[in-house]
Amino acid sequence: MDNNKIGTYQFVAEPFHVDLTGHLTMGVLGNHLLNCAGFHASDRGFGIATLNENDYTWVLSRLAIELEDMPYQYEEFCIRTWVENVYRLFTDRDFALVNKEGKTIGYARSVWAMISMQTRRPADLLALHGGNIVDYVCDEPCPIEKPSRIKVTTSEPAATLTAKYSDIDINGHVNSIRYIEHILDLFPIDLFKTQRIRRFEMAYIAESYYGDTLSFYKEEKEDGSYDIEVRKNEGEVVCRSKVMFR
Amino acid sequence: MDNNKIGTYQFVAEPFHVDLTGHLTMGVLGNHLLNCAGFHASDRGFGIATLNENDYTWVLSRLAIELEDMPYQYEEFCIRTWVENVYRLFTDRDFALVNKEGKTIGYARSVWAMISMQTRRPADLLALHGGNIVDYVCDEPCPIEKPSRIKVTTSEPAATLTAKYSDIDINGHVNSIRYIEHILDLFPIDLFKTQRIRRFEMAYIAESYYGDTLSFYKEEKEDGSYDIEVRKNEGEVVCRSKVMFR
Repeated sequence: MDNNKIGTYQFVAEPFHVDLTGHLTMGVLGNHLLNCAGFHASDRGFGIATLNENDYTWVLSRLAIELEDMPYQYEEFCIRTWVENVYRLFTDRDFALVNKEGKTIGYARSVWAMISMQTRRPADLLALHGGNIVDYVCDEPCPIEKPSRIKVTTSEPAATLTAKYSDIDINGHVNSIRYIEHILDLFPIDLFKTQRIRRFEMAYIAESYYGDTLSFYKEEKEDGSYDIEVRKNEGEVVCRSKVMFR
Repeated sequence: MDNNKIGTYQFVAEPFHVDLTGHLTMGVLGNHLLNCAGFHASDRGFGIATLNENDYTWVLSRLAIELEDMPYQYEEFCIRTWVENVYRLFTDRDFALVNKEGKTIGYARSVWAMISMQTRRPADLLALHGGNIVDYVCDEPCPIEKPSRIKVTTSEPAATLTAKYSDIDINGHVNSIRYIEHILDLFPIDLFKTQRIRRFEMAYIAESYYGDTLSFYKEEKEDGSYDIEVRKNEGEVVCRSKVMFR
C-alpha cells in the first residue's frame, strides 16, 4: 500500500554536476529533489502541469538536507520521496538519498504551499481534488531535524551580485537552485577540500528578479554553522540559509 | 551497420534547466551534448573511465551548435551522436538534437583531443586501442558550418568576475559549461525575450582556476553576431565564443 505512496527515481552523478572533490554539488542535488517532488506529484494528479490548468502552482518554502555522504562522479544513486503531512496551507514532503549499494546516505525535508497564479494567494490544500491529497500521506521515517530558525544580524554583506540571464527561470524569478550555488560561493574553496557539508537549509521568503542587486550576509554561529541571509536591493529578505560543515 | 555507430540518448527539459522563455538553456544543452559524447565513447571502449586507467583523458577543443528550435519545459527530446572523422591528434564528433515529434531541430559539431594526464601532451588517436576508433567513423550528415574563426580586438572588458567554488570541476578547472553561462550573462535579458540563439560556438584554449579573474571582451560583428574572448588575470586567452541571434 505504502509502495505507491513513495516515488523512487534513478540518477547518475554527471561529470559537470560534481565539484572539485568529485562529489555531487548541493545545487544539483537540490535540483534533483525538486524534480522528484514534481514527478511524484504529477504521477498522482497534483503536478504543476495539472495545477497550471487550474491556475495553481506549488511554491517551495523550506528545504533542509542532511547528509552522511554524497554520490561520487559517475555513481548511480536514487532519490525516494513521499508526503509526510498535509495541512490547510502547507504540505511536508520528505526525501531519502540512496547510494549505489542501496544504503540511505541522506535525508531531506521540504515544506510547500500552493498559490493561485492569478492572485498569488495561498490555496487550501485540503479542498484540492476533493481533499484526496491526504490519501498519499505516508509514515515513512525521516530522521533529521525540521528546518530551524535562521538569524543573521550582521549589516556588512559578504558578497553582492546582480541577477543575470542565467539566474532567471520561466517565471522571471531568480531560480531556487541558483541561490544555493551563490550561497556556497561565499565559502573559500579550501573549506570544501577539507570539510563536507553535513546539513544545508534554505528558507525561501520572497522572489527576486533580473537586475536585482542581491546582497549576501553571512555569520558564523557558536556551533560552527553559518547562517546566511540574502536581501535584494538593500531591502527585502529574499531567502535565508544555514550551512553546517563536518 | 551504422546503427551501432550512432548513439541515441533521451532527455526531458527540466524546469530548472529552462530560461525565462521556457526553452532549454544553452549551458544545459552543452552539458547534455558532452554527456552524450561520454556515454557514446564509454559504450565503445573509448570513455574517460577506460582511458583514465591508462592516464589519458578527452579534452574538448571546439563546440559549434546551430538550432532551429530548442525543447520547451517538460518536453522530451533526444540527442544523437556519432564520430565524423578521426585524425592523429583530433577527432570530430557530431550531434543532432531531435524534438518530441522526431524532427531534427539542431546540429552540433565538436572537436576533441586526447591528452596524457601525466605529461598533458596529446596522444595519437590512431594508435589507441590498435587504431580501432576509426571503425566508428560514420558518414551521417551534419549540415552546419564548421567552427569559425573568432576574433576580438576591443581592450575594454564587458564584464569581469572571479572564479568561485561553483565554477570548478573535479579537475580543479573552471568547467566548460560555466563559461557558456557566464558568456550568455553578458547579454541583456531583453535580447532573449525577443530573439533566439541561432548559432553558438565555443573554442576552449586554456584552463582557468579557482580565484582567477576572468575578463570577458565582447564585440559585435558586421553580420550582427557577437564574438567574445575570455582572458584570465588580464593575460592569457582561456576561451572564445561566437553568438548569433535570429
